[in-house]
Amino acid sequence: MNDPHDTPLPVAPLAPQAPGRRIAYDPAHPLARPFVPNGAAFRAGRNSPRAFLEERLATIERDEPAIAAFVTHDLEAARRAADASMARWQGGQPLSPIDGMPLVVKDMIETIDLPTQMNSPIFRGFQARRDAACVRALRQAGAVIIGKTVTTEFACSNSGPTRNPYDSSRTPGGSSSGSAAAVGAGMASLGLGTQTHGSTIRPAGYCGAYALKPTHGALHVGGLAPLAPTLDHLGVIGASLEDVWAGARAIARFAGGTPPQPALAGPDEAPPARAPRTLVRLDTLGWQETPPSSQAAFEVAIEALARGGVRILTAENDPTTAALERALRGINEFANDLLAWEAQWPLRAYRAHGADMVGERIHNLLARADGMDEARYVRALSDRTKLRARLADFAGRVDGFVMLCSSGPAIQDHAFTGSRSYALPWTLFGAPAYALPLLVADELPLGLQVAGFAGQDAETCAIAAWVRDTLLPHVR
Amino acid sequence: MNDPHDTPLPVAPLAPQAPGRRIAYDPAHPLARPFVPNGAAFRAGRNSPRAFLEERLATIERDEPAIAAFVTHDLEAARRAADASMARWQGGQPLSPIDGMPLVVKDMIETIDLPTQMNSPIFRGFQARRDAACVRALRQAGAVIIGKTVTTEFACSNSGPTRNPYDSSRTPGGSSSGSAAAVGAGMASLGLGTQTHGSTIRPAGYCGAYALKPTHGALHVGGLAPLAPTLDHLGVIGASLEDVWAGARAIARFAGGTPPQPALAGPDEAPPARAPRTLVRLDTLGWQETPPSSQAAFEVAIEALARGGVRILTAENDPTTAALERALRGINEFANDLLAWEAQWPLRAYRAHGADMVGERIHNLLARADGMDEARYVRALSDRTKLRARLADFAGRVDGFVMLCSSGPAIQDHAFTGSRSYALPWTLFGAPAYALPLLVADELPLGLQVAGFAGQDAETCAIAAWVRDTLLPHVR
Repeated sequence: MNDPHDTPLPVAPLAPQAPGRRIAYDPAHPLARPFVPNGAAFRAGRNSPRAFLEERLATIERDEPAIAAFVTHDLEAARRAADASMARWQGGQPLSPIDGMPLVVKDMIETIDLPTQMNSPIFRGFQARRDAACVRALRQAGAVIIGKTVTTEFACSNSGPTRNPYDSSRTPGGSSSGSAAAVGAGMASLGLGTQTHGSTIRPAGYCGAYALKPTHGALHVGGLAPLAPTLDHLGVIGASLEDVWAGARAIARFAGGTPPQPALAGPDEAPPARAPRTLVRLDTLGWQETPPSSQAAFEVAIEALARGGVRILTAENDPTTAALERALRGINEFANDLLAWEAQWPLRAYRAHGADMVGERIHNLLARADGMDEARYVRALSDRTKLRARLADFAGRVDGFVMLCSSGPAIQDHAFTGSRSYALPWTLFGAPAYALPLLVADELPLGLQVAGFAGQDAETCAIAAWVRDTLLPHVR
Repeated sequence: MNDPHDTPLPVAPLAPQAPGRRIAYDPAHPLARPFVPNGAAFRAGRNSPRAFLEERLATIERDEPAIAAFVTHDLEAARRAADASMARWQGGQPLSPIDGMPLVVKDMIETIDLPTQMNSPIFRGFQARRDAACVRALRQAGAVIIGKTVTTEFACSNSGPTRNPYDSSRTPGGSSSGSAAAVGAGMASLGLGTQTHGSTIRPAGYCGAYALKPTHGALHVGGLAPLAPTLDHLGVIGASLEDVWAGARAIARFAGGTPPQPALAGPDEAPPARAPRTLVRLDTLGWQETPPSSQAAFEVAIEALARGGVRILTAENDPTTAALERALRGINEFANDLLAWEAQWPLRAYRAHGADMVGERIHNLLARADGMDEARYVRALSDRTKLRARLADFAGRVDGFVMLCSSGPAIQDHAFTGSRSYALPWTLFGAPAYALPLLVADELPLGLQVAGFAGQDAETCAIAAWVRDTLLPHVR
């Protein structure tokens, strides 16, 4: 695995009789293992990035057969990188707060030392000759890359083998399946994902992981396989909000935003929690899909936030919120139009390898595009612009928005990776959304989403931290 | 060469004692060989795409040792594609006006059947697994791909082996060196290029070829190796204005623009010539660099346009033009800032292969970026926005702009590919510019540039056609 120009590496096979596993989720004691709080111990020599990595590798050895998060990995390279990091911490000169952080990379993202196969037979053994901007940035910040993680095919079609770390009978969500499962399972503290409709927020919530879907363009997308340029986001999944933030900032610091977008701004470590005065509660299209146990968990959370002193706006008590909820009812059609039209290239180029070389959802997307013309695409762009105006109506009036990450916990399915009804709005807004795995439904993780305005990734993180601190005592 | 997963193909070596060649340029009888006018003959069976291709292949066989335009080619695949096209024409059902057009592709652009090596040892033998959006579109339109053409390293650094088709001692220009030389020499009728500062307009003018640097984003850049996203354009080089237009429209029709940009709009065949009432004559920064013989050729052209009934605005007779000329004096610094900052990824990722694996200009660009911060980049973006406002001042008042493509004919150099002073303004405007190889200086081709407003690629083409028709009788 050390010579990228050697024989192509096979895609990791799914264990045919993968062991079943079911673990009740406790948000106060998750499987996920945060990295950033260990900095002081690393500096003092009481812990080390190598020791921290070895715990992750032991988890991988034990649980990977049941979870199947990885496509390829290079554990020896990770050990060498962790040792180098350990020396920097002990010398008092870590490269960043995430120096030594165990990282996994969605297999849609180019890496110079491991293939990028996109869960497609077309890209079997494909070896890029450069690191994606985000991968290079995280290496510069000292992150320790363990391996590449399972994606759905081209981040939009056939599912991979990955199982939910809390219940093997359930999906980890998609398309960033492996990154969410690996972080949620404690195999790594940081996972890179992508989100074009709902592919970071949904799997993070399903797998008991935190995540940030940043402002569109605030984290450089160079080296991510393109799907739909105005929708594609780099997503950051992490074991804690602090890990997510520090990982995102390391990318911004070393790689910047996608030109000409400004880079995600803020401190290198997570901003302190800040109490919001006003939050908007959104049900979105997803509420009708959400089972009663998940609705109840959300209501408990909203009540706890209100008890914490937050004024909660809803469609019932606030006309602007009612207008936004109405606007969100119409998003599916134009969101699908945006995706289908923009993704024609590369999807048509992939399908040119043979109709049987791509999955059904790719055929469906291209069939949708076949029925479109540029005028319809322009209408979809215009619909999105109008939707964004409904969000702008709140500027200066509220501190953020709260909703679920998904319509219930991970579904008992492996072909379908779940509804994107709750994740789609902030994709369309191009504004920051955090997944906080603070709720529980049916003993499974249920993510709460805290979202904000474009460019206010740090401000929204501070609100999300307060929401976490407020809810953690109340969630069980 | 038929199995892309086979052994990597070597980069075509430069013949160590390449034969010298010097041919006096006559714009009325260029070496370039237009394709589109042959449609009627193809339909009638008096000529065929296969016969047309064989003439190009004979030219390649004879002249490639002196010109070295190609990195790789697949002549048998081209013959098969030409035969299929011939059958369509004879059946009365060509796929487009460019069905059967011999095409060459700059080696910065992904092709599924030939490697994409970017004149870099890092990408030696690199085989993409998809066609770029433009390549796929042109295949759908029936174009016949002959091969991949020499680029400067990553379109920004070390020159390749290509020689100017009119004088082996001179550069073909860069970075689209091979595409311009191949089209100028009559080896192909259409060549794909890219332009980030001046890489399409300059080599086309140097090599006696026509070209379009379209409105930014009007031709899909998917599958072009990215350099600086807000500057990168797909460029179309052709043997005639009609070939250029039909090629560009085929790309727009089958691949569209880069989302969310609208596709280049207009008829599938070149719009009829339209006489302009008012044109702006621009000297730009390049005038001081331009030798007297080239200045004289430009003056003759301007006089001929004026005699043709066009009112010519200049810095002397029009304050708005004077303001634009003043604004253009300051562009080099911020244009270099935009390039250096935006190109950090991928250039840093390439340099990570080793300092000696990339050329000097890449080190220089990265050194410039090292001295920048995001605030300086934001100032450069703002400087460009202000410059665009100076162009907008002309909207509704003038039909277009005329200037040279380069400060004189091709220079006697192979390491440096010439000044971009004349090409850079329309790159920064993100607006359409056509290269018309209508002038002669020192018996060499000298390109005239006709440029317009963003989104008015077709309107500007009609003006360019009139300029060509007006100047051709006068140019010698």
